[in-house]
Amino acid sequence: MTNLTLMGKNAKSASRVLATLSSAEKNAVLHLIADEIESQVDFVLAENAKDIDDGKDAGLSQAVLDRLLLTEKRVQALADDTRSVAILVDPVGSLIDAKVLPNGLRLSKRRIPIGVLGVIYEARPNVTIDIAALSLKTGNAAILRGGKETLRSNLALGEIIQSALKKADLPTSAIQVIDTPDRALVKELLRLDKYVDMLIPRGGAGLHRLCIEESTIPVITGGMGICHIFVDESADLARAVDIVENAKVQRPSVCNALDTLLVHPAVAAEFIPQVAARLVQSKVELRAEPQALSILENIDADVNPAGENDFDTEWLSLILGVKVVDDLDEAIAHIHAHSTEHSDSILTNNLENANRFVNEVNSSAVYVNASTRFTDGGQFGLGAEVAVSTQKLHARGPMGLEELTTYKWVVIGDGHVRE
Amino acid sequence: MTNLTLMGKNAKSASRVLATLSSAEKNAVLHLIADEIESQVDFVLAENAKDIDDGKDAGLSQAVLDRLLLTEKRVQALADDTRSVAILVDPVGSLIDAKVLPNGLRLSKRRIPIGVLGVIYEARPNVTIDIAALSLKTGNAAILRGGKETLRSNLALGEIIQSALKKADLPTSAIQVIDTPDRALVKELLRLDKYVDMLIPRGGAGLHRLCIEESTIPVITGGMGICHIFVDESADLARAVDIVENAKVQRPSVCNALDTLLVHPAVAAEFIPQVAARLVQSKVELRAEPQALSILENIDADVNPAGENDFDTEWLSLILGVKVVDDLDEAIAHIHAHSTEHSDSILTNNLENANRFVNEVNSSAVYVNASTRFTDGGQFGLGAEVAVSTQKLHARGPMGLEELTTYKWVVIGDGHVRE
Repeated sequence: MTNLTLMGKNAKSASRVLATLSSAEKNAVLHLIADEIESQVDFVLAENAKDIDDGKDAGLSQAVLDRLLLTEKRVQALADDTRSVAILVDPVGSLIDAKVLPNGLRLSKRRIPIGVLGVIYEARPNVTIDIAALSLKTGNAAILRGGKETLRSNLALGEIIQSALKKADLPTSAIQVIDTPDRALVKELLRLDKYVDMLIPRGGAGLHRLCIEESTIPVITGGMGICHIFVDESADLARAVDIVENAKVQRPSVCNALDTLLVHPAVAAEFIPQVAARLVQSKVELRAEPQALSILENIDADVNPAGENDFDTEWLSLILGVKVVDDLDEAIAHIHAHSTEHSDSILTNNLENANRFVNEVNSSAVYVNASTRFTDGGQFGLGAEVAVSTQKLHARGPMGLEELTTYKWVVIGDGHVRE
Repeated sequence: MTNLTLMGKNAKSASRVLATLSSAEKNAVLHLIADEIESQVDFVLAENAKDIDDGKDAGLSQAVLDRLLLTEKRVQALADDTRSVAILVDPVGSLIDAKVLPNGLRLSKRRIPIGVLGVIYEARPNVTIDIAALSLKTGNAAILRGGKETLRSNLALGEIIQSALKKADLPTSAIQVIDTPDRALVKELLRLDKYVDMLIPRGGAGLHRLCIEESTIPVITGGMGICHIFVDESADLARAVDIVENAKVQRPSVCNALDTLLVHPAVAAEFIPQVAARLVQSKVELRAEPQALSILENIDADVNPAGENDFDTEWLSLILGVKVVDDLDEAIAHIHAHSTEHSDSILTNNLENANRFVNEVNSSAVYVNASTRFTDGGQFGLGAEVAVSTQKLHARGPMGLEELTTYKWVVIGDGHVRE
């Protein structure tokens, strides 16, 4: 039987070993994992094939099956990605701040690993390797709970990781994959605050809400984006069409894709038909509120009246809400009311309006004259992406390696006592 | 009837106004609050007198009553403290990081307020003013829930704050004091994640556990310190006696006071009697494990055998656990097993051991050759202290103004779309 408490205890104990490793030692493990992945391709593909067979029997859609599927090329990519993580700069041990106090105490804030991460994810088995590599790189232990559809694939990858850890003479409990699809274990994991320091859910709104409701461990919430672009009166309309198309069409299934287009009334009659004409080429359906709807009346586009909850919906597909707002005030008010604080953008040539938007919209990423699609660890130059946080504490927006660390105060004295 | 949802909604709305205030505007409110406190001393003292009367009727101890009591001098201190907060540097708006990406996007991380703070505290009414001042200084709104013993005092101070907010033309819901002792409201507050961004409990272990168990809002846990000093073989023993005395005796009721003394066997027979002789002067009771006990056998000291849970107890009083450990390894293992990761110190002249202790002990504050009593916002030069965090996320150790902020990514483009 899976003993989660024991897994937690062992993870905590392993985390103490990982915390004191040098960057070279951690990179060596990552290379061992990559080598091990390459030498065990057949094993991984065989276990994945069983998952796929079960998925077919369970009637999973072709789209889902494709996400679960591992191929020789995809497994090779896992090895390559692991080696890429080895190249990144290790944030652990660096000083955030250092000063000498008036009494001579030498005070510094030193970056350290968080300890033990709990990660709950759905679908794609590559997350197993991805999170394991990022955790080890930052000296963290991790307990992983993947989707039940890829249980065998995840366990195979877990074995590979543990085999590499063993070769490096490190505790195998540094990375542990929960070996049963039993959902009760998720709830148990959520309450393992004695051993797990941070919980990262990677999945839909339901999973995030479950974690918020039930977890006694601090949770990184995010990943959901109801994203806005406001086209201001002074926007360069030709560029605005390009930006809106990019934000909506380039990859509609992701969290930083555009959901709602807000337009200033002075340019609505000119801009909305232009953008509609472009979007219809990519088969985007528009959900327009009455004023926008009337502008779109005689336009060749796929248009429907916006429903009650349409402006509170993350589309993740080729649908776009369209609304004419009175002015910047109403645009900001709409964003305050409907945004999930992921990524929101203003297109304008008015400096005062750009500044007001940047100051008053407190989303994780606030844009001027750019597509919302850039909110991404890779695009922001973080080298990796663990998750995208839309909460207020610890980290906001794309989380890279640094966001898998915390700090301690190091205080060096010379017999100092407090007066 | 107290409508907590409405309070939350209004606080969120007020937080948007506070977030865009300049430092000068925020400081002006703080001065108005200080003025208002001074002009309403009689009102505050009258309301506090009612609390004290009720406390006497309820049979509260003289020590507790003294903590609840406001005097003219203490009220004046509240006004002075508020003006001191105005002098501090405002962290909001500062850039944490800024770079230009290869594609020309200008990326920066800008400090912003967290939004709405929920603060639950016990006993002393000065926390009401203290938290209100720090929240306003950092552009945060706050919902405060003080102890029922000082409900009237807290409400009086809340009125004063709101009257100052009104004079500054700011929304009074920026600082709201929950106006009933009904405990059901605490549970309701803990689930107000739609409006409250961060929860700070300031009280005992029970309150912290309640927040961890029940809150859907991210919680800052901390305040509890089981603190250790390890006296290594090479420690300067005369200084070690001073440091241990300071850590234990100078203010035993606080979280950074010493709880457990660990001693290397090579110096145990010499050091333990010395430190016991010093501590007996301050009436410290020693709780010693067998080996330490035998050393203390014929010493004039207040000694008892350590009980089963004594090394897992935060004493907050003149009691000190004493244990002889085999070596640094066992000292670190003991700290890993029993520390609350607040403040732990090694006294040594051995550089390798000092480094190992600093590397392997990941408490919020790790000391070499100094008293644990320095873990404090004021001592660390933060200018203020909101709380002391012993958790891993967001903030560790003393939290000052910066720890009441988060950040957003500001991305300035020029028609940028993602390839």
